[in-house]
Amino acid sequence: MDREERNERLEKQLAFSLEIDKEKNVLRQTHLSGHGRRENDAEHAWHMAIMAWLLREYANAPVDIGKVMLMCLIHDIVEIDAGDTYAYDAEGLKTQKIREDAAKERIFSLLPEDQRGELTALFDEFEESETAEARFAHAMDNLQPLLLNDSNGGSDWKEHGATASAVYGRQTKTRLGSEILYGVTDGIIRKNIRRGSLRE
Amino acid sequence: MDREERNERLEKQLAFSLEIDKEKNVLRQTHLSGHGRRENDAEHAWHMAIMAWLLREYANAPVDIGKVMLMCLIHDIVEIDAGDTYAYDAEGLKTQKIREDAAKERIFSLLPEDQRGELTALFDEFEESETAEARFAHAMDNLQPLLLNDSNGGSDWKEHGATASAVYGRQTKTRLGSEILYGVTDGIIRKNIRRGSLRE
Repeated sequence: MDREERNERLEKQLAFSLEIDKEKNVLRQTHLSGHGRRENDAEHAWHMAIMAWLLREYANAPVDIGKVMLMCLIHDIVEIDAGDTYAYDAEGLKTQKIREDAAKERIFSLLPEDQRGELTALFDEFEESETAEARFAHAMDNLQPLLLNDSNGGSDWKEHGATASAVYGRQTKTRLGSEILYGVTDGIIRKNIRRGSLRE
Repeated sequence: MDREERNERLEKQLAFSLEIDKEKNVLRQTHLSGHGRRENDAEHAWHMAIMAWLLREYANAPVDIGKVMLMCLIHDIVEIDAGDTYAYDAEGLKTQKIREDAAKERIFSLLPEDQRGELTALFDEFEESETAEARFAHAMDNLQPLLLNDSNGGSDWKEHGATASAVYGRQTKTRLGSEILYGVTDGIIRKNIRRGSLRE
């Protein structure tokens, strides 16, 4: 690679780096602990990646933890264009795939071809949720907001009138990644039913 | 490990996971791109970890990228107690080490002993800045806010009346991690001197 090619490559990598800054403006429905403000996607991804490292011993199958962490870090990048779709928003969920595919195309295209390929493949692997890494990353995607919501007395569920069956439905993905962490999830759900934050 | 021991271990890991949520409330001096609000430590760490992966080919020496990413993710956890110390705040810098040591003791003590040891060692390795991983992580710690600040016309420097020599002083750490990325840094600094955002 000559100097000009290297500069072009580096410029693309820096353009992508700057572009993803926008993920910090994508708000989720979850609120920070201490009855804080709404969380954004970048914070959520940071939290998931650290939790993945801390809790990796509970994965159902051995995982490449570096790969899981990177997957956690990038899994919501498409929401820069597509926005966050709330887990229990039936209308939004119908168009989610189309919106996210267009975003994936645009955003990862900023990168040099090889890195575009790598990150697109990693993003798709997460979405398909078939490998041990993707399943464990999904367990983190589910557990992290549960921890925050539970620390706030289940107020996010209360606000949306969420039902236990809807929450259990989504949490099946946690079970595929980690039976042990699904036990944590189950305990949190039962507690919130008991205290009236989650409808049965 | 029997069930009771495992539950105790898991409870500690979850308590730590919830505690670090507070890092999202630690504000930095850097503003988000698009003349946005101030950035927080968790967002900064997320951004650094992805940039580390993207730019790892420019490290002066080969790095274990999983280790660099984890280092980036946790390097500011002590600021939950100690607060963010601005790079050019001479008074704050005098007490920074004492404040951060106390925080390190308290926060990492929430973890099981083995993980406490691992994360404390990784945090210390970053601080000592002697390994290839720590040096490259420091290059990210410096480059990430520069990218944002430059995208905003250097307004963070303007606001603080920063001087080019102070900025160059801090950026020597980037050079130890990556000569090539130091070239990017140097270009950004020169541009901001020319446009009057940084005093010579």
